Amino acid sequence: MRRGRGATVVCVALLVQKFGGTSVADPDRMRTVAEHVARCRKRGDDVALVVSAMGKETDDLLHMASKITSEPDGREMDMLITAGERKAISLMCMALHQQGVEAHSYTGSQAGFLTDANHQNAKILEINPYRIKESLAQGIVPVIAGAQGVSTEKNVTFLGRGGSDTTAVALAHALDADLCELFTDVSGVFSADPRIVPRAGKMETITFDELLEMTATGCPKPAMRSVEVAHNHRVPLHVRSAFTWEPGTLVVERYENEEESAMEQPIIRAVTSDVSESKLTVVGVPDQPGVSGTLFRSLADAGVNVDMIVQNVAADGTTDISFTLPTEDLVKAQETLNNGVLSAISGTLVAPESSVGKVSVVGAGMKSNPGVAATMFETLADNNINIDMISTSAIRISCVIDADKVDEAVQHVHTAFGLDR
Amino acid sequence: MRRGRGATVVCVALLVQKFGGTSVADPDRMRTVAEHVARCRKRGDDVALVVSAMGKETDDLLHMASKITSEPDGREMDMLITAGERKAISLMCMALHQQGVEAHSYTGSQAGFLTDANHQNAKILEINPYRIKESLAQGIVPVIAGAQGVSTEKNVTFLGRGGSDTTAVALAHALDADLCELFTDVSGVFSADPRIVPRAGKMETITFDELLEMTATGCPKPAMRSVEVAHNHRVPLHVRSAFTWEPGTLVVERYENEEESAMEQPIIRAVTSDVSESKLTVVGVPDQPGVSGTLFRSLADAGVNVDMIVQNVAADGTTDISFTLPTEDLVKAQETLNNGVLSAISGTLVAPESSVGKVSVVGAGMKSNPGVAATMFETLADNNINIDMISTSAIRISCVIDADKVDEAVQHVHTAFGLDR
Repeated sequence: MRRGRGATVVCVALLVQKFGGTSVADPDRMRTVAEHVARCRKRGDDVALVVSAMGKETDDLLHMASKITSEPDGREMDMLITAGERKAISLMCMALHQQGVEAHSYTGSQAGFLTDANHQNAKILEINPYRIKESLAQGIVPVIAGAQGVSTEKNVTFLGRGGSDTTAVALAHALDADLCELFTDVSGVFSADPRIVPRAGKMETITFDELLEMTATGCPKPAMRSVEVAHNHRVPLHVRSAFTWEPGTLVVERYENEEESAMEQPIIRAVTSDVSESKLTVVGVPDQPGVSGTLFRSLADAGVNVDMIVQNVAADGTTDISFTLPTEDLVKAQETLNNGVLSAISGTLVAPESSVGKVSVVGAGMKSNPGVAATMFETLADNNINIDMISTSAIRISCVIDADKVDEAVQHVHTAFGLDR
Repeated sequence: MRRGRGATVVCVALLVQKFGGTSVADPDRMRTVAEHVARCRKRGDDVALVVSAMGKETDDLLHMASKITSEPDGREMDMLITAGERKAISLMCMALHQQGVEAHSYTGSQAGFLTDANHQNAKILEINPYRIKESLAQGIVPVIAGAQGVSTEKNVTFLGRGGSDTTAVALAHALDADLCELFTDVSGVFSADPRIVPRAGKMETITFDELLEMTATGCPKPAMRSVEVAHNHRVPLHVRSAFTWEPGTLVVERYENEEESAMEQPIIRAVTSDVSESKLTVVGVPDQPGVSGTLFRSLADAGVNVDMIVQNVAADGTTDISFTLPTEDLVKAQETLNNGVLSAISGTLVAPESSVGKVSVVGAGMKSNPGVAATMFETLADNNINIDMISTSAIRISCVIDADKVDEAVQHVHTAFGLDR
């Protein structure tokens, strides 16, 4: 694999550059991006561009569909939504032509993205980017529509929100690119959301596994699925701003700086939070095999992505099962469970808690240092914040708390672990 | 950093080779190891050896101490235990001399291992291996006592069971070694324990994060702490057998083979299990801030390494908190909690469940593929195995079940995810 070492800038490189919706929101923004690409080309770099739909275009298209039907056909929805990126790639090519840069637009299908047939949330199966390679070989900048593909059933598919990140990372892997640059409206990955914690610091580097746990627990950018692909294939990533153009955060294998990686001491990197989830609890279930299988298979089949699961057996021999899920899937989940699942497991659904929040710390060396969890719990207690659910991994601790207290919790935990600048 | 690419063998390399207790159990075994080192030297490789105490020596020393006192002084215990490796390194040097290989023995202190003062479970703070480097520069094989160091208070310290692995990995990092080879009595890392699942396969490669989650959930070798160090510093590892000498499992950044890393599909690598833990439940705790902090700080201060934590609020406004911990820490944990902690949080400790088992699946792409958890739960249910607790991370799902059913569970889950050879 042709690849730079991440931290060093390769003189002449193949770059995949993704520009999100706000970066290409209007013709002026597009001209700015085109000027940037022209500079990269002048330096001698090869560039493949991945572009999202302009600004709020995707929202507008969804809104229009909702005015026609409340139960749109999946195939037609994807045909509709993907029109947004189609507009963006053609306009971006025109902007590039104005800068004297040769450029060709490609839909997801033309770029060779084969996906499954799960409309509005399609997963990439494989990429055959021969047209993109041809374009690059001819010195023509390929401009690829983000978040699209063509299904095994030959229908146009949409990868879902944040799908342009996934397109860019997967394409960078398929092209053996030297670097995948995700240009966005933040200047990198921070030790906490700077809107919540003004003293949060931008991280120069972050490891793939830490970024994976961060995005899995609420860090909004880059999109979770793109980070899974980058993590699994070790695609060199640079998360940076399309507004300030300053260097952002490089995603690396390991820290080069010894201060960032003490031999056996735990090092907390970041505090993340998420208020986009709700909590459902099924009570009074008999404590016997099959309950979890029935419950979570029905939710998986309905496409509900359950996050945390807590199950504990009560003294009376019944079990309560609580789990968190995206609030946007709450109605679908309730319908699924009420549609025969609850009666099958003899359970009762209590009123959903739609105001739960989750705060997490991510870092290395937690597993053999029990004090990290204790410090987190104490910090929350000292600030009168009650813990509802707890979940841990080798490099993460998460607590579900009241959504109203999430910002406060993030601030105190950020301070407690010495992350304030 | 001087470093091979993991999968390729560097012609002339600096190797750190660790030999565990069974590999050096008697003079014949030591001769076999010395012959192996002689061959490596003849090939031109530089070798630093890390050696554990012979066979059951550490157990014998602990047993002797227990006949004298039930409350030994920590400093004296470490002085005693470290005598085991002192014997092993000097005998190993004599065996090397017999093969015509120049060799010098070094205690942990002489090798420059500075640790904290936590006797019997000391953590490495830093390593200043200048004597080891001198030895290597002179062509003399340094033979280093595993699992030892000297504390900031200038006392001899023991790193704990499995500490030789940590010594080897940390030394390999400090020396910038090309490869750290952990020679043991198994031939590598398997998709499940081959004693439980005869159709488990040896893995040619495993990623650092997958190995971290595997050892965190019960894969006994290499030792958890050594894997944390290897993971954080990306120390190239080779887990292999000192009995068959065949190539073992290489620990890598990412899979080179596309079949092992489909673009967005989940790939389950391994099923792990653990029956070394017990479960404690504190019931009737008021649902208010501070409970978890008080509880887990007291356990952390007592050196109890809590694993899974489940907390859920009951209908009557009280909370039950269940957690798992190493069974060997069970008495210490109960004493700690009974010593004022329970009254402080108004909780009651129910009888411990000392027969819990944990079964986990480890792999990539689980977070965005809800079907993985459902398949695991269903497989357990289909085999009439009840789930007691559940915990998930971005690359792992763990279920606490009856210890008696663990082997059966591992077999069925291994089959369900298509891991049988």
